[in-house]
Amino acid sequence: VGEWFRDAGVDAVTVSSVEMAASFACHGWRDITVAFPVNVRELREIDELAARIRLGLLVDSAASLAALSGGVRSRVRVFVKIDTGYGRAGISWNRTEEVADLVGRIRSADRTDFAGLLTHAGHSYRARSTEEVLSVHRRSIERLSHLARELEGPGPRDFEVSVGDTPTCSVADDFPGVDEIRPGNFVFYDLQQLAIGSCRAADLAVAVACPVVGWTPDRSSVVLYGGAVHLSLAVLHPAGERPVYGRATHLAGASFGPPDVTSAVISLSQEHGILAPGKDTAGRPGPGDVVLLFPAHACLTLNLHREYRTLEGRILRRG
Amino acid sequence: VGEWFRDAGVDAVTVSSVEMAASFACHGWRDITVAFPVNVRELREIDELAARIRLGLLVDSAASLAALSGGVRSRVRVFVKIDTGYGRAGISWNRTEEVADLVGRIRSADRTDFAGLLTHAGHSYRARSTEEVLSVHRRSIERLSHLARELEGPGPRDFEVSVGDTPTCSVADDFPGVDEIRPGNFVFYDLQQLAIGSCRAADLAVAVACPVVGWTPDRSSVVLYGGAVHLSLAVLHPAGERPVYGRATHLAGASFGPPDVTSAVISLSQEHGILAPGKDTAGRPGPGDVVLLFPAHACLTLNLHREYRTLEGRILRRG
Repeated sequence: VGEWFRDAGVDAVTVSSVEMAASFACHGWRDITVAFPVNVRELREIDELAARIRLGLLVDSAASLAALSGGVRSRVRVFVKIDTGYGRAGISWNRTEEVADLVGRIRSADRTDFAGLLTHAGHSYRARSTEEVLSVHRRSIERLSHLARELEGPGPRDFEVSVGDTPTCSVADDFPGVDEIRPGNFVFYDLQQLAIGSCRAADLAVAVACPVVGWTPDRSSVVLYGGAVHLSLAVLHPAGERPVYGRATHLAGASFGPPDVTSAVISLSQEHGILAPGKDTAGRPGPGDVVLLFPAHACLTLNLHREYRTLEGRILRRG
Repeated sequence: VGEWFRDAGVDAVTVSSVEMAASFACHGWRDITVAFPVNVRELREIDELAARIRLGLLVDSAASLAALSGGVRSRVRVFVKIDTGYGRAGISWNRTEEVADLVGRIRSADRTDFAGLLTHAGHSYRARSTEEVLSVHRRSIERLSHLARELEGPGPRDFEVSVGDTPTCSVADDFPGVDEIRPGNFVFYDLQQLAIGSCRAADLAVAVACPVVGWTPDRSSVVLYGGAVHLSLAVLHPAGERPVYGRATHLAGASFGPPDVTSAVISLSQEHGILAPGKDTAGRPGPGDVVLLFPAHACLTLNLHREYRTLEGRILRRG
């Protein structure tokens, strides 16, 4: 999948783990950012990567920075991870002095170059409309820009401002003062993104092909060979409905049709998926039939499979 | 792990997928039951296994049986999957005629031997006390025994009765009329089993070692390198508490200590876990420290890792 993007002229990639960075480096990528607070238990792996590629890392504390600076032999690019409202990780955008202190340490430490300020406005995932996503986006950019101005010297800015989450990057047109965006989920999208308003149904690009193995004892639902080990337990919470782990779709020419919103995967155990059939699956599918399911969260679903198959029949193997 | 059981004299195993059966067969197991309704899209893999081992399979419809019987060249043992109240899969225990019809088809079809009646009383997972588990157990066994008597001929019974779910098998002492039990989770147990009353804290035998990478922006919680791709999204729903994805423990001599019930993993994203620290983790762990987490559901967590490490330092690699 990375090769499709490289063919389109993309030459830098953001990943979520050092392991994934190593895999992309093996496939020839030379500019990789690991968008996760540096894990100082992986300094050996980080050091090996830093010798081979332009490596970007995230820190949010002097303790992590000190361990990193002391643990690598090649230069690494260090972003300060900023929280603009999500609340998960990083230094809060309004702690200017704390950020300035850390930036100073990065600039003066051995083998670390200050790359810039980086945020992930993951609270966009709680939005339920395009307008809500845009509101998160504007507020996040404003906060990050404010902080960047506070840190700027008298000359031109010598660091980057990096943002990225699929909802805001999908919906927003303006990224004032931003140097790079790092969405990931947009490659495939999923039912959660559709519910947020990040994409249209026609953008959903991955489904899990689940063999039918029977019906529930009360004959109300289809039993699929498609459980938590195939889909993950990620859910949608549609208003007025039970949690939904996936919805059926079908092949429509060379593409997927829209999700059948009258269908729902209502229960998952390790290997079993229970599908309340909708209009597309109402024709009593039986053993040997296959139901295509759009997952709630494509990232976790893709992580559970080592191979993927394109609609043209090509097999893609994971790094 | 299978070898520990083989060393203790166990020579038959139940698995949840054909892929897992193939893996156990590669490691010398010769009596394997796949406790999942037969997926007739895997007849080639099933046929290869059936040529090598004593293979047990589950059916709950004439359609699956016909496809199976026509698709294998070696004999297979066929259990009829019975539902005794869980409601997930199988034929309801009180549909005697439907079961008798299917048993007759198995007995007369090519290459299929009737092995017996099999159930999984998975509704025991909804119990919240030993007494509730025992109540599920007694009712399930009664229903299965009733059906078995209806199917018996005048001579001695020539088929097996197979039950198995970790809660009932952990708690019950009496299994009247039952020939085999098939619990799985008991190998490691987890926080869900502890909440059900299936095990004691001292029985919890698997934890995930998660490096600390920092603190949340408000400094209330620890950020761990331990997300949904390491733990799975399986949760506990403790009364009066938010959903809990895991709890901290610590090493106590050659074993794990009890879960710190004052700690809780309160949020998971792909790679991040957010731990509200308890008494054991209140000492502000920092980057480079490691927190041991008991998972909510060991099966899904173990599925996400290719390697495990014993407390003696031995590395176990998955089949």
